[in-house]
Amino acid sequence: MTEVLAFDIFGTTVDWYTGVAEQVSALAAKNGIELDGGEFARAWRERYLPSMDLVRHGELPWCNLDVLHFRSLSEMLNERGIELDEFARAEFVQAWYRLPAWPDVVAGLTELRRDYLLAAISNGGFALLTNLINAGKLPFDCIVSAEMAGHYKPDPEVYLTLTALLGVHPDDVLMVACHNWDLAGAKAAGLRTAFVERPLEKGPQRTADKPGEIEVDITVSDFVDLARKLA
Amino acid sequence: MTEVLAFDIFGTTVDWYTGVAEQVSALAAKNGIELDGGEFARAWRERYLPSMDLVRHGELPWCNLDVLHFRSLSEMLNERGIELDEFARAEFVQAWYRLPAWPDVVAGLTELRRDYLLAAISNGGFALLTNLINAGKLPFDCIVSAEMAGHYKPDPEVYLTLTALLGVHPDDVLMVACHNWDLAGAKAAGLRTAFVERPLEKGPQRTADKPGEIEVDITVSDFVDLARKLA
Repeated sequence: MTEVLAFDIFGTTVDWYTGVAEQVSALAAKNGIELDGGEFARAWRERYLPSMDLVRHGELPWCNLDVLHFRSLSEMLNERGIELDEFARAEFVQAWYRLPAWPDVVAGLTELRRDYLLAAISNGGFALLTNLINAGKLPFDCIVSAEMAGHYKPDPEVYLTLTALLGVHPDDVLMVACHNWDLAGAKAAGLRTAFVERPLEKGPQRTADKPGEIEVDITVSDFVDLARKLA
Repeated sequence: MTEVLAFDIFGTTVDWYTGVAEQVSALAAKNGIELDGGEFARAWRERYLPSMDLVRHGELPWCNLDVLHFRSLSEMLNERGIELDEFARAEFVQAWYRLPAWPDVVAGLTELRRDYLLAAISNGGFALLTNLINAGKLPFDCIVSAEMAGHYKPDPEVYLTLTALLGVHPDDVLMVACHNWDLAGAKAAGLRTAFVERPLEKGPQRTADKPGEIEVDITVSDFVDLARKLA
């Protein structure tokens, strides 16, 4: 019986593309450099899985996502020949702390919270996730950050840190995400899986994962649809 | 500058006395035993600090509050010559998972959440706290459980786990509690302190801590008063 709904955050719950693109554009203007916010946001995010893989495969020691974001940003700036001091780079990294939730999120979570425990489970750091949840006034009950597991999704340790802390069996948890790699990791750890469609997750080119590409327990169009289907 | 408000939970945010008393009375009736719910709740809670001290002083290995609650309960039942099987004892322990919030809590937190990050910081286990926050639909941004620190308040490690995870200095955090021992621990770790009056915390005998017994940065009558005074 599902008792816990575990929600991925970047892309699934919040629109990182729009939020990072807007803030990067504003920060670029402030610092007198030329950048296409949308292109830069997408390129930054493309370094996300490879940067975590360095930690997952032992090529880097554990470091939280802020550090990986800073590292990826510095590589990108160097490749583009853009000069930016450390303070400004830290401001860019903070762009990931304030991202808009998709419009269905608060209504869907509020409805779902009546019947389920709602956990945010993300590769974001604990501070980043706390700030994101505050910014959107999102009605989650708890956060399980990769930082608490010392591992990044899709490593099973992250999903199993959630089940251990909440004292539930893996199949009591439904993992909700818009990424096949995350749902495959959750499934390998014994969780149930819900694919949520977020066609604009990676911007207007619609290169987001599509439903039906992997086997899941349930497919939904958004969080309100999830509440309806679980009712 | 205060950025984070860290709230104690038992007594400060939720009325453990009323909640545990009512559930103990109901469970006693269900199991055919005679118990005064209020007296039993108070006696159970009196074993709270001593049981944690066993862990704090190395006489017990780390175990979360559910385990300590189970242990204290078993001692009390033995002393009173009451037979109760393990399943029923586990149901008694679960009484601490669903406790009513004081009437000002949701309004106060909702107001405060506009300007501050709101953390629950408690000796309760992670599952217990997640369930309590869900039961009261409390608008916290994150939970820092003693279970995440492997220490119990007032050990400094608990308060410093919060500051480390949120990436803030200790004096950026205002600790809100109705217990002097908790505020003294927070202050020793470098946090700012707010005493909140909860005269009925330990039941109608009004044996709760009173304002003015230790030096704090601010004293408030409830969470709405805190929001007014920080505005």
